[in-house]
Amino acid sequence: MNDKMTIACLDLEGVLIPEIWIGLANKTGIDELRLTTRDIADYDELMQKRLQVLDDNGLKLTDFQEVVASMDPLHGAQDFLKWLQKQCEVIILSDTFREFAMPLIAKLGNPTMFCHSLQVDASGRIQNYILRQQDQKRKAVIALKSLNFRVLSMGDSYNDLSMLEEAHAGIFFKPTKKIAEEYPQFPVTQNYDELRERLQADHGFAN
Amino acid sequence: MNDKMTIACLDLEGVLIPEIWIGLANKTGIDELRLTTRDIADYDELMQKRLQVLDDNGLKLTDFQEVVASMDPLHGAQDFLKWLQKQCEVIILSDTFREFAMPLIAKLGNPTMFCHSLQVDASGRIQNYILRQQDQKRKAVIALKSLNFRVLSMGDSYNDLSMLEEAHAGIFFKPTKKIAEEYPQFPVTQNYDELRERLQADHGFAN
Repeated sequence: MNDKMTIACLDLEGVLIPEIWIGLANKTGIDELRLTTRDIADYDELMQKRLQVLDDNGLKLTDFQEVVASMDPLHGAQDFLKWLQKQCEVIILSDTFREFAMPLIAKLGNPTMFCHSLQVDASGRIQNYILRQQDQKRKAVIALKSLNFRVLSMGDSYNDLSMLEEAHAGIFFKPTKKIAEEYPQFPVTQNYDELRERLQADHGFAN
Repeated sequence: MNDKMTIACLDLEGVLIPEIWIGLANKTGIDELRLTTRDIADYDELMQKRLQVLDDNGLKLTDFQEVVASMDPLHGAQDFLKWLQKQCEVIILSDTFREFAMPLIAKLGNPTMFCHSLQVDASGRIQNYILRQQDQKRKAVIALKSLNFRVLSMGDSYNDLSMLEEAHAGIFFKPTKKIAEEYPQFPVTQNYDELRERLQADHGFAN
């Protein structure tokens, strides 16, 4: 293996857990929560809309967390993560909000996560969201490189491209056909076995 | 609580687990492994001496790891760490070597750790140690601040001073009387209950 210490940056939703907003829509039956950046391109507009929908339905943070707590990591995610943590250091880089994801993060054994947060009032109403910083995934990889880590990134979608590009090596996990074709420089893996094999073959990880 | 996302940087030995070299000396009966920077001030000279002692006694990495695996985290460390991970993100900043500490890190639930590593040959003999970078604790805190985190640091000894100083707030955990008197700017806590109470009182952490 490379002499440099390795750290793996993993996307969360779609890689270790299901998409939270979709899960919330499924569990609550509120279809408006299915909106994504494909429907409303402007992220701030989308988030304000989502928070409005939560408010309109009287959903507070605790309700939200109860629903998330009833969700599970993707099948095999816990074992894969444990294996990965034996091989190298791991950080989750996600554009989710800490307060939303916490129940699922706990089920993953509380890995360290760099993400965003929510402003919640005393009654539990979500007032607003706070982006920790713009382009946070790229900046995190740059910071880890400055600490002399060898950085591997794994993600599935457009908001992962910056960290896949900035890392010493980037790997797609279950990407759409479209993005995999647009960015052929990143090897494609479709499940944890393939990802594990790829890390063993290309990066000297043990069994 | 502060609007900024908080990350806690925790020293490892003396804060969550016992001193590994002392534990190794106790378990193997090899007294030369008790040498510290108080006996040999130059760290490189000390480490070369330690590796020589391991070699002289035919101790390979796997022997070392077996001994470490028979050690336990400090009493209450696992519960404290779990509580802390609910409150904020956590990273271990340690000057230990990943390969040495892994068995104990596993007992802590595999928290992310920034530390150093070892060069090991095919037979398992430890050839050398690789410092990831000089002054790594300070640089990690600087990097985390650049990612717009509010950084809290907790440590017990001289190699923690740089991260205690660089963080937004630093707290001593079970320091020697000497260092606590030399650096009165850092509040002193003597056990996990006191540390928890300090974090609740000064940093708005929940119960």
